[in-house]
Amino acid sequence: MTQATNRQVLLKSRPKGIPQAENFEIQETAVPQIQDGRILIRNIYLSVEPAMRGWVSAVANYSEPVPIGGVMRAFATGRVDQSGHPDFVPGEFVTGMFGWQDYALVKPETIQRKVDPSLPISTSLGILGLNGLTAYFALLEVGRPEPGETIVVSSAAGAVGSCVGQIAKIKGCRTIGVTSSVAKAKICSDEFGYDAVVNYNSNDLERSIGRLCPDGVNVYYDNTAGSISDAVLQHISVGARIVICGTASVPSWDPPPLAPRVERRILVRRARMQGFLVFDYADRYDEALAILTDWVKSGKLRYREEITNGIESAPGSIASLYRSENMGKRLIRIAPE
Amino acid sequence: MTQATNRQVLLKSRPKGIPQAENFEIQETAVPQIQDGRILIRNIYLSVEPAMRGWVSAVANYSEPVPIGGVMRAFATGRVDQSGHPDFVPGEFVTGMFGWQDYALVKPETIQRKVDPSLPISTSLGILGLNGLTAYFALLEVGRPEPGETIVVSSAAGAVGSCVGQIAKIKGCRTIGVTSSVAKAKICSDEFGYDAVVNYNSNDLERSIGRLCPDGVNVYYDNTAGSISDAVLQHISVGARIVICGTASVPSWDPPPLAPRVERRILVRRARMQGFLVFDYADRYDEALAILTDWVKSGKLRYREEITNGIESAPGSIASLYRSENMGKRLIRIAPE
Repeated sequence: MTQATNRQVLLKSRPKGIPQAENFEIQETAVPQIQDGRILIRNIYLSVEPAMRGWVSAVANYSEPVPIGGVMRAFATGRVDQSGHPDFVPGEFVTGMFGWQDYALVKPETIQRKVDPSLPISTSLGILGLNGLTAYFALLEVGRPEPGETIVVSSAAGAVGSCVGQIAKIKGCRTIGVTSSVAKAKICSDEFGYDAVVNYNSNDLERSIGRLCPDGVNVYYDNTAGSISDAVLQHISVGARIVICGTASVPSWDPPPLAPRVERRILVRRARMQGFLVFDYADRYDEALAILTDWVKSGKLRYREEITNGIESAPGSIASLYRSENMGKRLIRIAPE
Repeated sequence: MTQATNRQVLLKSRPKGIPQAENFEIQETAVPQIQDGRILIRNIYLSVEPAMRGWVSAVANYSEPVPIGGVMRAFATGRVDQSGHPDFVPGEFVTGMFGWQDYALVKPETIQRKVDPSLPISTSLGILGLNGLTAYFALLEVGRPEPGETIVVSSAAGAVGSCVGQIAKIKGCRTIGVTSSVAKAKICSDEFGYDAVVNYNSNDLERSIGRLCPDGVNVYYDNTAGSISDAVLQHISVGARIVICGTASVPSWDPPPLAPRVERRILVRRARMQGFLVFDYADRYDEALAILTDWVKSGKLRYREEITNGIESAPGSIASLYRSENMGKRLIRIAPE
């Protein structure tokens, strides 16, 4: 079953701004041999994340930058191919930061968890992976929504945003989605149950939010920053919580672009703006995954995936994500299940 | 003892930016007669606050704007002159929002509290008034400093900042003050016990903060906003708390000036930026005043006052405050104690 070669996507050059296909190259090497209690994993699904922009940036970040010439850091889900460790047996599905490559030879601690095959294993990278965990902890621990409150979500149809909107509904909130196209707006309403949706490309967002939220925005779940946030911030309520989860709409932070100063509004509204990183909640993943899995199985929590085939689609996938072309969690399938 | 006339400082025109002397006028009217259980108070000290800029602004705020032609809203401390209510007797010292005027005829609920004359009664407007309460709740409830953490305070010598720095020391923090002159820097070190002080007018603030806080700023207590904050934000630690208490360095918020976008740094450092308004803690003032009074009496908490004489100095006093001319809590004495 093991292929003869291991194709790996390497970081060739450090991008300025959004990583493009030309910042990567694919190399073929020998499949590594198991040794020292390690596990050889045949990757099946590779994940594409907005956060990858940060991972390849030389600008100070929450993790060390991926080195030039290194395999691109990525979450992946695959099958144990060969195991030198008693806790893992060939054939089991596992997920972890295995990189954009066909095969990963890892220590046991690199495996985040085994994947239950009773749901599609691709969910381990999205709704039951980083995206679902991010939505769960960022919304509930930072946003702290109360029943009856109004929440605005940017990138409302995205892998994280769509989950945030649905969890907020489960918690009794009124949900307003902000998205970029008619097609995504329709998905927000029909599949993710938003109470209202604003397509910022065909509406005056600031006026729309003002009209939809006459008593103010209690929670703003921000996946974009940029002018979308500037518009929503005009309408935050007293005691509002602003969850800073992503900055997808800002093409470059080096140097940071200019924006209207926020201090006065934060002060007058006694608002709280707080940054979130899911890795800070690693010791509580199991708790959240149990709840998210229940919601998915009971149909309370829906998700979309957009899967392309072949590792060749990896290098250009981050740029595609930032062009908002995807209609669900972006995954790359590189082997049959 | 009662004068024949009541001098009142009225808001004559709405300022654009910092209120200037010409935005006010002084009128003389008859001293009001007590009626309907009200209390006539002879004001002795009038307070001058940076927040007054907000109170006279037509821009949406946390309180209704002072109307044109209305007596300027202000905290004051005075003596009960005549009382129509059994809870207050002539001769008692009281504090509350009595306005910039010689006499205030108020309902009992307008009186915030009686003032203990065992300490100078002027303290009721500063260290044992709005400023001390602001420092206490904003630092402890929003900033939540831990022993050993590093805190940076802007307007470090100011009425609020100096109290923040000292409470942070009491709580075991390392304190860095940011101030605007050599004289104020000396006061910060000698009187308020800051571990280090940066005069931003004679140093590169951003580099100084970086040098003084090699492990990052855990709490930034922000009284200024503006370029001071932009510099400090470069050096916030993971998990930093940014207390937005005032925006003294920004001359106008209509429209908000441009600044480097904060979202990326807030995200990467998982920082929390939160606005504070002392009035939200009104039901806990007694608790804080008891502690602040103990600290003042035991010499742990020092304060400075800068007192001018005569109601004629009121109209220009806010502008003077924003020119950073004062060396302590700015008060106006309009009658003998």
